[in-house]
Amino acid sequence: MTPEEFRKHGRDVIDWIADYMEQVEEYPVLSQVAPGDVRASLPVSAPQQGESFDEILADVKRVILPGITHWQSPNFFGYFPANTSPPSILGELLAAGLGVQGMLWTTSPACTELEQLVLDWLIEMLDLPPSFHSAGDGGGVIQDTASSASLCALLAACHRQADSKPHDTRHKGIDSWQLAYTSDQAHSSIEKAMMIAGMGTDRLRVIESDAEGRMRPDRLEQQMAVDASHGLKPTFVCATVGTTSSGAVDPLAEIGRICNEQGAWLHVDAAMAGTAAVCPEFRDMHHGLELADSYAFNPHKWMFVNFDCNCFFVADRQPLLQALSVLPDYLRNRASQSGEVVDFRDWHIPLGRRFRALKLWFVIRSFGVEGLQQKIRSHVEWAGQFAEWVEADGDFELAAQPSLNLVCFRHSGGDDMNQKLADTLNDSGELFLTHTVLDDQLTLRFSIGQTSTRLDNVERAWAAIQGTAAELS
Amino acid sequence: MTPEEFRKHGRDVIDWIADYMEQVEEYPVLSQVAPGDVRASLPVSAPQQGESFDEILADVKRVILPGITHWQSPNFFGYFPANTSPPSILGELLAAGLGVQGMLWTTSPACTELEQLVLDWLIEMLDLPPSFHSAGDGGGVIQDTASSASLCALLAACHRQADSKPHDTRHKGIDSWQLAYTSDQAHSSIEKAMMIAGMGTDRLRVIESDAEGRMRPDRLEQQMAVDASHGLKPTFVCATVGTTSSGAVDPLAEIGRICNEQGAWLHVDAAMAGTAAVCPEFRDMHHGLELADSYAFNPHKWMFVNFDCNCFFVADRQPLLQALSVLPDYLRNRASQSGEVVDFRDWHIPLGRRFRALKLWFVIRSFGVEGLQQKIRSHVEWAGQFAEWVEADGDFELAAQPSLNLVCFRHSGGDDMNQKLADTLNDSGELFLTHTVLDDQLTLRFSIGQTSTRLDNVERAWAAIQGTAAELS
Repeated sequence: MTPEEFRKHGRDVIDWIADYMEQVEEYPVLSQVAPGDVRASLPVSAPQQGESFDEILADVKRVILPGITHWQSPNFFGYFPANTSPPSILGELLAAGLGVQGMLWTTSPACTELEQLVLDWLIEMLDLPPSFHSAGDGGGVIQDTASSASLCALLAACHRQADSKPHDTRHKGIDSWQLAYTSDQAHSSIEKAMMIAGMGTDRLRVIESDAEGRMRPDRLEQQMAVDASHGLKPTFVCATVGTTSSGAVDPLAEIGRICNEQGAWLHVDAAMAGTAAVCPEFRDMHHGLELADSYAFNPHKWMFVNFDCNCFFVADRQPLLQALSVLPDYLRNRASQSGEVVDFRDWHIPLGRRFRALKLWFVIRSFGVEGLQQKIRSHVEWAGQFAEWVEADGDFELAAQPSLNLVCFRHSGGDDMNQKLADTLNDSGELFLTHTVLDDQLTLRFSIGQTSTRLDNVERAWAAIQGTAAELS
Repeated sequence: MTPEEFRKHGRDVIDWIADYMEQVEEYPVLSQVAPGDVRASLPVSAPQQGESFDEILADVKRVILPGITHWQSPNFFGYFPANTSPPSILGELLAAGLGVQGMLWTTSPACTELEQLVLDWLIEMLDLPPSFHSAGDGGGVIQDTASSASLCALLAACHRQADSKPHDTRHKGIDSWQLAYTSDQAHSSIEKAMMIAGMGTDRLRVIESDAEGRMRPDRLEQQMAVDASHGLKPTFVCATVGTTSSGAVDPLAEIGRICNEQGAWLHVDAAMAGTAAVCPEFRDMHHGLELADSYAFNPHKWMFVNFDCNCFFVADRQPLLQALSVLPDYLRNRASQSGEVVDFRDWHIPLGRRFRALKLWFVIRSFGVEGLQQKIRSHVEWAGQFAEWVEADGDFELAAQPSLNLVCFRHSGGDDMNQKLADTLNDSGELFLTHTVLDDQLTLRFSIGQTSTRLDNVERAWAAIQGTAAELS
């Protein structure tokens, strides 16, 4: 495909996406295909000769589109939002077009410096602690996901503590006395990080949460004391701002005090909820964050930046570098050796990296801070209204207080009824929602955060929920 | 930005990229900015009000472009190629436009099934062992990078072996008697994987390579015997097809035999070179691959697919799932529980994933197998010609036999001269090449693999190298 042909086909794809944006509401939100359908519609072997782009694009419509669960539908209320927006799509496009690989500063200085700048912008935009700013000992970096950010934080924690009680983690591996802590409401990625880091899940102390799903600091302190009395080392704590199941916010100030006393690293996972801090009225959730060693949130969830874009901040970058840096001859270069630049390859698991800061920069500039605030406020307001409707209906109850844009609720008919309700609604294609388990009961989650969701989508969803429940009762 | 505005600005970005493709040869390959230049040209804070897209695109030209090291220039001969192509860019664009998150089959069946299909296509295209096919016990998955693939292979290896000698790795963490092996020419990501997996670099046995940079199987066997006699467990071996420094190919058949005898997992890292197997005449490098437990190569290096796209295959997916699967309530769903589908979240570090199969599918279909072969053959042929020119010039010598598209060479003037030569050439902006250390001597690497590189780019590069060397002598 020549540059001239690219101009033509590029316009076709842009138009295809614009049409998709305009029509996405008409598609069943949850894909209706059966296992194997997509694959069975395509040739079993690659073509020997090249095919025309028109044929390929026709197959996208014929085969791929029916196999899509439409995360960008305004009627998508499942899991968490993974929203995107036109400027983000164009930022990703431009990154693909430039095709730079930003493993080192020198392999594209703009890739590193724009990322540092935009992450510093976010510190001001979300009123995060100044210790995360790149001008000091800390700094921010874009990771693919919150899972990877948590893993990197865990590794940095282990290295920092080992340094102070001499254990040579880089060479000797993980110190078998180190322990991690999180709440029983934390994301499953913490358990996964324990497995990847070679620590095993037995060394993850799962701390009880209170009735609202918040980690209990008294239990954390007790558990750490018991562990320390056995010669074990409290090393890492992951607190959550906005748990996956119910949006609960762990009390950071108390947890931070305990971590600082024990010399444990505090990582704060605000993957979904973090974006809300762009509005001053929602910043209470970050109270105590200045005590944290690291923090992560996902603009690819609720800040209109397409997946993948996790922003990970550390107050001190040295332990992270110690955990992850390697320097073979073939990567040595003058700029790195000058000490004047940052090489982000040492800040995460992969070596290579693409220019993800572009899409984040495009989104922040296109919306402006006020534009982002307006969107977030609408979503939270509509979640509050939805919660009121639930409370006003005698057949339904709230399973937890609504948290920002997330409402957890259930029908009074029990687990089977709620499962059937969710399945029937999802099979209808009109909307999509998912479930969790709270208080040992199946609970429906209604998460509002797609870019194009309007109040009337929320209203129609509630009408469908009520109507379907009545039919099933 | 409305869909209508997206149509307009989308066309602008498409045109911008097409112009870039046409003009990239005119830019200095290595960015000429000094540390801090990019950042200093941009505002210190995010805008409160949204800005027009035209302003943003103007800043891309004004600030970002000078800060780019042009990996897509036909005069880029550094590191390894990280090439892209028009169909790949459009695949990435479409993935961003659809904005699906494919963590589970159900969250977009097409995302999982197209990925399975295209990776099965690659098995046929590259003549890889049938054990990697998704129809059997194995299967392929797209990872971000070869670093992550190696890490996942290491984790799977540790879990598989622990299973047979009971050690509960998921709960108890890494078994402290397990060892990994690789050659002194292996990629630095293996060392990094040891650090991330909690094993530490002391448990990585670095096996001597021969004069051609290939792992010595006799030394591997000796080292494993010594280790086993001390009660240690040879667990994981990473062999390389196409080492980073010189493109050496480890003898897979002999290494595979040893691994199978010892019950060690053999992972084969063919990150750069793997693509060459699309041509039957280059498949010797894979001799013995049927003995491997896992294999990875990067279409984002040499197969015209933009970063990130690593293809990772396993002959048995169970140990991988055992190492990485976690199942919280909020991810349970009917499709997964039916056992009829694959959920790729359990195949890698992150939970979320974007629709990367689209760009790979677009590229394979647009080029066709023959189109890919033609490109690869040209690159290899030109590398052979370049090597002949080096040999014919009394001031230069080959530092290793050329391997596929990579030529390692040096000027007879010693390390300082070679460093000065590389720096002068790179500062000129006319071309970009990088270096490594072979036989304790600074060695220049000339890697041919950019999509738009033509023979005359290679000719001009050699003329510049000769001319600059003459000036510096």
